[in-house]
Order: sequence, then C-alpha cells, then structure tokens
Amino acid sequence: MTEAIQLSPDRYFDPDPTVRTLARELYETVATLPLVCPHGHVDPRLLADEQATLGTPADLFIIPDHYVFRMLYSQGIPLEAVGIPPLDGGAHETDHRKIWQTFADHFYLFRGTPTGLWINEELQTIFAVTQPLNGKTAQPIYDQIAEKLARPEFRPRRLFEQFNVEVLCTTDAATDPLDQHQALRASGWQGNILPTFRPDNVINLETVGWRKHIDALSQTSGITVHNYTTFIQALENRRAFFKSMGAVATDHGAPNPYTTELSEQAANTIFQRALEGEFTTDDAAQFGGHMLIEMARMSIEDGLVMQLHPGSLRAHNRSLAQRFGRDKGDDIPVAVDFTRGLQPLLWKYGNDARLTLILFTLDETTYSRELAPLAGHYPVLKLGPPWWFFDSLNGMRRYFEQVMETAGIYNTAGFNDDTRAFASIPARHDLWRRASANWLGSLVARHMVSEGDACEMLYDMAYRLPKRAYKLE
Amino acid sequence: MTEAIQLSPDRYFDPDPTVRTLARELYETVATLPLVCPHGHVDPRLLADEQATLGTPADLFIIPDHYVFRMLYSQGIPLEAVGIPPLDGGAHETDHRKIWQTFADHFYLFRGTPTGLWINEELQTIFAVTQPLNGKTAQPIYDQIAEKLARPEFRPRRLFEQFNVEVLCTTDAATDPLDQHQALRASGWQGNILPTFRPDNVINLETVGWRKHIDALSQTSGITVHNYTTFIQALENRRAFFKSMGAVATDHGAPNPYTTELSEQAANTIFQRALEGEFTTDDAAQFGGHMLIEMARMSIEDGLVMQLHPGSLRAHNRSLAQRFGRDKGDDIPVAVDFTRGLQPLLWKYGNDARLTLILFTLDETTYSRELAPLAGHYPVLKLGPPWWFFDSLNGMRRYFEQVMETAGIYNTAGFNDDTRAFASIPARHDLWRRASANWLGSLVARHMVSEGDACEMLYDMAYRLPKRAYKLE
Amino acid sequence: MTEAIQLSPDRYFDPDPTVRTLARELYETVATLPLVCPHGHVDPRLLADEQATLGTPADLFIIPDHYVFRMLYSQGIPLEAVGIPPLDGGAHETDHRKIWQTFADHFYLFRGTPTGLWINEELQTIFAVTQPLNGKTAQPIYDQIAEKLARPEFRPRRLFEQFNVEVLCTTDAATDPLDQHQALRASGWQGNILPTFRPDNVINLETVGWRKHIDALSQTSGITVHNYTTFIQALENRRAFFKSMGAVATDHGAPNPYTTELSEQAANTIFQRALEGEFTTDDAAQFGGHMLIEMARMSIEDGLVMQLHPGSLRAHNRSLAQRFGRDKGDDIPVAVDFTRGLQPLLWKYGNDARLTLILFTLDETTYSRELAPLAGHYPVLKLGPPWWFFDSLNGMRRYFEQVMETAGIYNTAGFNDDTRAFASIPARHDLWRRASANWLGSLVARHMVSEGDACEMLYDMAYRLPKRAYKLE
Repeated sequence: MTEAIQLSPDRYFDPDPTVRTLARELYETVATLPLVCPHGHVDPRLLADEQATLGTPADLFIIPDHYVFRMLYSQGIPLEAVGIPPLDGGAHETDHRKIWQTFADHFYLFRGTPTGLWINEELQTIFAVTQPLNGKTAQPIYDQIAEKLARPEFRPRRLFEQFNVEVLCTTDAATDPLDQHQALRASGWQGNILPTFRPDNVINLETVGWRKHIDALSQTSGITVHNYTTFIQALENRRAFFKSMGAVATDHGAPNPYTTELSEQAANTIFQRALEGEFTTDDAAQFGGHMLIEMARMSIEDGLVMQLHPGSLRAHNRSLAQRFGRDKGDDIPVAVDFTRGLQPLLWKYGNDARLTLILFTLDETTYSRELAPLAGHYPVLKLGPPWWFFDSLNGMRRYFEQVMETAGIYNTAGFNDDTRAFASIPARHDLWRRASANWLGSLVARHMVSEGDACEMLYDMAYRLPKRAYKLE
Repeated sequence: MTEAIQLSPDRYFDPDPTVRTLARELYETVATLPLVCPHGHVDPRLLADEQATLGTPADLFIIPDHYVFRMLYSQGIPLEAVGIPPLDGGAHETDHRKIWQTFADHFYLFRGTPTGLWINEELQTIFAVTQPLNGKTAQPIYDQIAEKLARPEFRPRRLFEQFNVEVLCTTDAATDPLDQHQALRASGWQGNILPTFRPDNVINLETVGWRKHIDALSQTSGITVHNYTTFIQALENRRAFFKSMGAVATDHGAPNPYTTELSEQAANTIFQRALEGEFTTDDAAQFGGHMLIEMARMSIEDGLVMQLHPGSLRAHNRSLAQRFGRDKGDDIPVAVDFTRGLQPLLWKYGNDARLTLILFTLDETTYSRELAPLAGHYPVLKLGPPWWFFDSLNGMRRYFEQVMETAGIYNTAGFNDDTRAFASIPARHDLWRRASANWLGSLVARHMVSEGDACEMLYDMAYRLPKRAYKLE
Repeated sequence: MTEAIQLSPDRYFDPDPTVRTLARELYETVATLPLVCPHGHVDPRLLADEQATLGTPADLFIIPDHYVFRMLYSQGIPLEAVGIPPLDGGAHETDHRKIWQTFADHFYLFRGTPTGLWINEELQTIFAVTQPLNGKTAQPIYDQIAEKLARPEFRPRRLFEQFNVEVLCTTDAATDPLDQHQALRASGWQGNILPTFRPDNVINLETVGWRKHIDALSQTSGITVHNYTTFIQALENRRAFFKSMGAVATDHGAPNPYTTELSEQAANTIFQRALEGEFTTDDAAQFGGHMLIEMARMSIEDGLVMQLHPGSLRAHNRSLAQRFGRDKGDDIPVAVDFTRGLQPLLWKYGNDARLTLILFTLDETTYSRELAPLAGHYPVLKLGPPWWFFDSLNGMRRYFEQVMETAGIYNTAGFNDDTRAFASIPARHDLWRRASANWLGSLVARHMVSEGDACEMLYDMAYRLPKRAYKLE
C-alpha cells in the first residue's frame, strides 16, 4: 500500500533552512517561465490533429512508457499483462482497466524513483487526484482520470497551451515525410512544434531493416541512393527539407562517441558492401564514425545544431527484443571514451564557430574526466543535461557537481525533457528548475556565488541557455 | 593519541535537525529487528563447538582481519609483527599482548575509517571499554577484553543469541565436507547456520593447486572427475549435498563478470588441457565464463540463489603472497563491464523466473551505468549491498544515490555483512540500518517519499528484502 | 554583469549550523599555519631576482593561466585577443588594458568555478578591490591593481614572505641548469625554494624535439648520451645535481600509469631506434613504462620522493597546438588503470621502505576502486591531493569521501597547490584547509570522529602530512 506524497511547495529542496529558503526564493523567479523543449519524443500526431486525445489512463501512463513497464517487468510481470503487444500479434491484455489495476498494485515499486515522482505529480496537478495510487484506489482513480481525459480541455493542444510550452521539438527519422508537421503548420494553430533530423536508421548499417530505410530515403528525397555520393546527397536533401519545416537540430544516437575520417572512396566501399548486405561489424563502426564527421560538416553548412547521444547498448535482452521489438526498457549503458573518440571530429571542426555540437552521456564518469574539460575548451561543444536514467534529482546533482566547476554553466545547454510522455513535461522541467535553484542556493549559502548572480544563472539554466544553444532566440 | 568517540544514539545521521529527527524515528522502528546474514565468512567452527571461544583480543581483532593488518602494513609495520605467520613457518610475533600493543600504538591510522568505527563500537558495546584505545591504554584494555572473552557468556553461541541473529550463512568451498555444519546440526543447538556453495577453487583453472582441489572434489562427491562431464556431475552432486545441509545460495568470486557459452566439447577440451596442466590464460577466462552460465543452469534446476562477486585482482602484491599466502589485504579492484559481460548468461536465462542472480561490485561506476539499469529490467537480477571497501557510510550513500532511482529498492537484496569478524556483525548491520534510515529520512524531508512509505521501505531494507532475495522466508 | 561575492569568514562551509560551527572552530586552528608547497609550477625567476615584479594585471591573471584563457576560448574568444602569441609570431593583442577588458567583459563565465573564486579572493585580499569585476569596472580595477603591483611590497619575494610560505618546490626539466635556483641561493635571501626533477622531455620518446632534449641532457650532465647506459648515467648525474640544489622529489607526467620491466638490452634497442628517429608508438609506451621503474630504482638509491601524474592526453586540439604550442588548456583526461598498470613497478619495489611514490589522478573513478585500496596496502604509496580540474570544493569533497575511508588520511600527502599562478597560492591552500575542516566537522557532527582527533587530523592534513611525505621535516 503506497501513500500519496503531499505535493509540498518545497519538494526536492535541501532540508537545511538556509539553503531551502534561498532555493525557494530563487525558484520562484523562474517557476512560471515558458517551457523550452528542444529535444524530446512526443508524437507530433497528438498535436497535429486538434481532436486528438491522450487515450485511456493506461495509454497515457503505461503502455508507451518503457520507464514504467521495465520496472514492472523486472519484478516478473509479463509485458503482455500491461498491454504490450508481441510482434507476432500474440495475446496481450487489452482491457485497460486491468492494465491499470496491475500497475496500481505494483506502484510501490516506484517509491523514491523519478518515474514515481513524476506520475504522482501529474496525478495531482493535472488530474486533481488526491488519493494515493494503490491496488484499492486503482479503479476510482482510473474513473477520475478517464473522465478528465474525455474533456476538451485535456486534449493535447489545450494542455500544450496550459503547460506554457514555448517550443517543442520532436525527433523524426531522416526518412520521415513530416506529414504531421505539415498538417500542424497547415492547421494554423499557434503552437510552435519543430521537427528534429535523426538519421540513425540510415547511418547505422547494423539497423534492422537498414536496406528498407535506404529505400525510404531514396523515396522521400527523390534521389536514388545507390552509392555513397547519392547517400550524402539524399541526406543533404532531407536536412534541407527538415530545415524548411523549422528544424533547428539533428540528433545522433551512436553506439559510442567514436569518430574517424574515411576517404570518399573508403566510405563508398563500405557503403557498397552494406548495400550488398556483406559488411562487417568493423565496417559499421568505421562508417558510423565517419558519418558523424560528415554530419558535423553538413551542420556547419546548414546551421543545424548537432546532438550526440552515445553509449547505449540497445535491445540488450535478445529474446525480448525478438518478441516485442526495440525500446522495451532493455537498453543498457556502456562505458565510453569521448576524449579519444571525438578527437578526429574535433581536429577537423572543433574550432569552427559555425558548429554547435551538444553532447550527452549515460556514463557519468565522463562528466568530470572528459566532458567538462572538453566543453571548457572547445568552442563548438556544449553539454546537454543529464540524460535518461539521470533525469532525476541525484542525476542532476551529480551533473551540477561534476560538470559546472570545470565547464561553467555557459558551456551547458540548459534542460530538455527528452520525453515521449507528453503529460510529464511540466513535472520534468519543474524538477530541473527546483534542482537548479537548490544547487545555486547551496552555492550562495556557502558564499561561493552572490544572490544576484545566482538569480541570473538560474534564469539562464531554466530558460535562456537552451534557447541560445539550439538557436531558438 | 586517539580519543574514544562517544557512542551517540544519533551516530551516522545527517546533522540537519529535520533529517536527523526523521532518521532517528525511522531507525527506532528497525533497530532491534533480528539480523539476517545471508552472506559472510564466519568460521562455522566457532559455532559448531559449544565450548569454542573467540581467543585472545589479538585473535579477535587483528590476526584474521585483513582490513586491520593491511592498514598497519601500509604504514610500514611488517605482517610478522602483528602475528601473521609466513608460509615457510618463519619468525613472527606470537605474544598477543605485543601484537595488541602495536595495534593500539597505531590505532590512530583508522580515524574516520569504517574499521575504526566498528572496532570502537565493539569495544564499547560488547566489551564495555570506556577508555580510548591508544598506546597508553593498550594493556589495561587487553586485560579487560581478555577477562570478558574468558567468560561463558562471551562464547560465540551466546553472542550469536545475544546479537539476535536469525540466520547466518557461511561460505564454504565446493569440496568442503561440511563437517562443522554437520556437527552444528547434530548438536541440537537452535542457531540457524547454513552453508553456501562456493566452487571458485575448482572452476577457476588458475587457482593455485587446482588439480588438488579437483581431487578433493572427486573425493567428497564420490564421482571421479576425469573429464568435463564428470566435473559437472560432481558439482551437481555437491550442490545437492549443500542443499540437503540447508544451503540457499551459491557464491562466485570471478575475476570479472565475463560470461560465454561453450559447447560441451569445447568445454571438455579446455578441461582436459587443465587436467594436463597445459591451459592458457584465455582458456581459463573462457572456461570460467562458461561455468557461470552452467551455474545459472544448475540454480534454475535446484533453486539455489546465485551470487556473483567479480572484479577483484587477488594477491596483487606477488612477493607478499609468496611469503604469506592469499587474503593479506592486497586484493585490488579493477574496472569491469557487466553490460557486455553478462549478456550471454542473460540471453540464456535472464527471463527465467526460477533464477535469482545477485550482483555485487567493487567498481562503483557500474552502479548507475550498468547495474541499476540491468536490475531495473531483468527479472532474474537483484543487486547486493555495497561490498568490501564500500561497506561504509559513504559507500552506502553512493549506493543509495546511484542505484535506487533507477532500480528501485525492490530490485535490491538488502544488506549482508560479508564478514569473518564475528563480533563486528551487529555494528555492521546497525550502520546499514542507520544509513538506510538517514537516506529515507532525507527523502521524506525533501517530500519525495511519505513517512509511511519510508517506514515500510526501511523495514524491507533492514529485514524483508534479504529474506526474500535469498528465499529465507 | 557579475557581482562581487562577499568574502565571508564562513566561505565554503556547509550551511548546516552544527557543521559550520565545528568547521569554523577547526579551521581557526590551522588558518595561519605556514604554507607547505611541495609541488607547483611557479617560475623561479620571479624569486631569483629581488627586483622582479609580477608585471601587469594581464600578466598576472590572464596570459600565463590556461585555466583562465581556455574558458574564454571555449566561448569563442580567440587566444590572440587575450595576448597569447602564435608560435609564428603572428598578430596578437599586446595592449594589456584591452586584454583585461575582454577578460572582465566575460568574467561572468567563471561564476561558480574555482578559478572565479580564486581570482575574486585574490582581488579582495591581495589588491583590496571592493568592486565586482565586470565590463564597467574593468579599467578602474586595472588601475588599482597596476598601482599596487608597482609597489615594492608587491614584489614576489615580499609576497612570498607575506603569504607565509615555509617551502616552495618548483618543477624543472631534467635538462635545466637550475641557474635561477643557483642565483636564489647566491642571493642570500632566506626563502626556501627547491627544485624538482622532471625528466618527461627525455623519457617520453614522443616529446616534440626529443633529440634536442637529449643533446641538452648531454650538455648539462657532461655525459655524452649515445646509448641507454649513458642515458641512465646522465639522468643519475642530473638527479645528484638537483639533490645538491635541495631537490626532495621527482615528478613524472606519464600518459598513463603503465609500467613494465625491460632488459637493459631491450631498453637500449628502443633507445637506439629513438636516436635514429625510427621508434614506434609501442616503443615509446614500453620505454616510458620501463623508465618509471628505473626512476623508482633511482629514488630508492638517492632518496628523492617520486611523484606520478598520469592520464592527461596533452594537446588534444591539434591545430591549436600547432599554432600556439602546448599548455593551452586543451589537455583532456582519459580513463586509466592503476591496478594493472603499476603492478610491475610494485612487484619490484612496492615493499621497499626506502621508496615513496605519490600518485595523482585525473580519473576520479580510480579513487575508491584503485588508489585507496593500493595506498591502503602498499608501504611505498601515498596519494596526492585532488589534481588540476579537481582542485576545487567538490573535487576535494569527492576525494575525502572516496579515498579516506579505505586509505585513511595517513596514506595521503596533504595538499599541494600545483600552480603557476603565484598570487593564487594562499587562496588555494585556504580552500583546502576550509574543505578539510568542513569534512572533519561533518564527521564530528555525525559522531564518527571525536573533536580532539579531528583537530589533530586537520593539523596533519594542513601541515604535517606534506612535510612528512616529501621528507621536508
């Protein structure tokens, strides 16, 4: 039986009265600033169609959220039981009330986790739920949420406005025709939704179905990709299209931050092998490392900010991935080496003021050892906020403590929520603002930063730095 | 000259009054719960014989404890001077009063260390020592402890009862006939002492004297081990015997968490080379990695919980190991890779509900990067408590802060003391309970967990999780 | 616009009143102890010549300090703009007022960084600046500092005395004739300035201009270096000379902590290849690893304390290094392995009481995993203080929390400032003393160390440990 946590106005702040008072005062100066969301995974469909809804409570909180169902799975609950369909169309729970009941029965598993805290906050602030979520309250709370979700003011566009989102960037495959984004623009709605160019599926030769993605690239670009040269042309074409649709950035989810420069001929040789389905693992690594440098070159030319999210070993649980597909909560980080890995890219473009390369990590050991020293030197580099597992109070604290002394806050890119859970966006930004205020309050209390400076720094961290880093000013 | 630390009822708690009050209140709810000790190295001989004693103060605190004598050695005190016998039977101090004096003269070296804190707590709570231990007080304190140790109520069985130990698991070589455990059972004493199956000496081909251990395995199992098949049979036989003697778990101290699946033929080829003394380092790595998967297979069949303690480079100081043998305080951790290393094992058995695999680490970078994400997904995985060097206030704090947000507490296995120092057991569990209460109190103070939930979580961390993880319920 | 931070007597201390009170009381017992500076990079020229001055404000704070100009460079300010001359003698700003203005305009970049805090403290305590440094105040503050720097009491020798420096070790190439140190001695001034023997330029075969450094070695030693034997003789000769000039230590900035033992013949083979300019990268690694063991051997013979600073990938930014040379803020750390890397050296000399080897790291993951366990066992090892990027409040906190529980404070070497910024020495030592007092105060508040012990420990950390480790007692 899990109790509801009272949503205190001082949540997340240090208990020390001096720090807490400073943190609260600082936080209040940024609490209601618009939300800048330059990186995330919200489905643009939700906003393209004015009539779109968030579905049932299970649709909203459980079925699409691997943060949630991975925890249930870790405790022996089959994915089918929470509505995840096997790829072969096998049996899975479709009664969303039952799925919700299973979730509520096990909500205690999320005690002390960021997921538990976000959900608790969403339930209280968006859906006015006052009871704790547990096995006994599951059904009345389901009713309460479902009733709300049916109302017009809970449609995504209305929530977007209510959340005070200034700009929301989605993440879209290079081969995506951006139909939803076109529909959005055509609708005349004022919400600022921008696409982000993510070419992983065509750049990473080991992607399942790579050949089909290349065909899709040919089709959407109108350039028949039959060799490396046409591949590059097609990518440039797509980038131009994304840019015409408002994109400000690209995103790259490489297995690691390895970069290397190949001759055009060498790149083409690998590309041809890939077209014939005969490339090696090393080919894929070389080609991926080379393409990151190519992407930097294109960013210099077209001005798109480049984001690099490396170091996740995707689909670690092979049999699960075979049954359910990817993104099922089994992506596990590995140690990475930015210092040596990025050197070829930085040799080539590290001093070129036209490039912005924003780095993220799942290997926190790189914060103080590699990322802060790199960002504290190279003009092209900025550090993205704590990512994925580290989008939490402790994750942010470690980031502040291990990055800021060397890089300074002005070599960071502020916050982004990186979420596909639309309704969690305000809670995530609020945590960042509270954690930032608390960190700065603690520096003021130690006489290491003046109150006036802390106030400016917080405004920058909460609002200005992401706009500047992503050229959204 | 070192002063005694007053044994405050608030020891280890954060000084902040809000957190301290919460921590104290929480702690009091679990302070007197029975001790569950599912992993440790207490010599069963101490408990098998009702008349056994703990020996002299030097026997109790110094000679068998590599935590203690490694620190003295690091400051230039020869191991011989504190009673460690060279393997060749060379000269070493045998006057336990002199050994105690040397220790007391240098007790200041342990200021601020967990070893210093445990010893201080034992001296005060078990032996009612009120003076600080230093060069001047050494002899009177020796007298006081020695006098106590001679009393019947200081025999191990009486202390076991006084400590309120609910269950104590020892660690025993696969080849151990478990005579002491048989004597324990035969004695009719009610103390619950269980063996644990540790086959490192026969699985790790690089073990000094491996061939002799194989012979011992043949002898205790009654199965002549002459190839891989009989090796597996003998191990299965021993596991069955351990289980019949109450064992609930196995333990594996692999050099690293590497696993790999070999064909039976390939495994046998290496095993034959090993029997002939002609294997390579790579053979040993492959065979060890394969045997971990075999051990998981057997655990699925016989239900023994599997523990993995990887990543210590044993006997780092070669000349010292040659003179004094192993376990002399010179085992040094190395970086490890659980994400890739465990993948073959998890591919095969990671989704099998019959398996429990409890992971430990000496590489704290794996907490947030690898272990928490793995345990937060795979149903078979649980995380053991901070191990060895990290069985300390800061070690626990890092564990809580780096593991719990991603894995949740319910993918952890509570505490175990992992100690051969019998008299230190209560102090170690008490530290865990205090550190846990303090962590939870801090979450309550930050409005991240409700007081009621914190209370349940603490009960789980202090008592229920180890019972559940080790199937001791 | 950046505000001045009021220089509170409680700066850096935890805000919790209990800890703060304890920290303050402890700190006051060591605040005015003499400064022991056993490792640093102050130019001996500043002290050799009684008439030497610190130059302009830009000379003092900006042009020689890569901590400062790397941050400006990371935000797009060309190095030329802050007075760094290109190697080819190309254009660069020579108006120190303009350089100062650029610095002041961007001083907000250093908010919350140790560099910002040191500079703020120097401005207030040494130059009595009361205004905040920013674009508007730049010129009046320039005037104020320049006026002070022109006074006799601001000459380096007078500041050295005012700073209460008991001993200051410089760092000098093996080939340095130590003219400045000879002048110092000849001058009759009482300041205790000692050289440190740093042979990186002749040991690391990959050093730019290695052949010239070998020639310089021949010249200064009077031994013509034409093979490995004469190379060793020349090094021994130089060490003897350094020792005759007061040196107590050597320093080694190896790329990583790899050691290996080569036969004399193998070492000579590589050395010959190097003389002919035909060695490989692996040759350099093998030779460097071998020479660390040779250096340990010489330290055993001549008693010089050995310091090892590994793990920085120097001159990461290739084109920048080509234009401006080394030490331009682009040295980036890499992950290192002390456990395996040092094993050959420790096998040979790890138990030899005549050797002291002080280890430093830029890979903080090695603190708890490798360095503390190694130093907590091997009699020859001591751990140096947090280095470079980690010479900060958080860097020290992580060091205390990750090292001390396992190694104890008595296996550490206290503090050194490692700075070339002469005027920052007091601020750096003061931070260490405050951070140490705060850490100990926090242990006292948690009842883990008595107040009396904390007081002794702080005295040791602030003063006695570096004197003992570097044989300066």
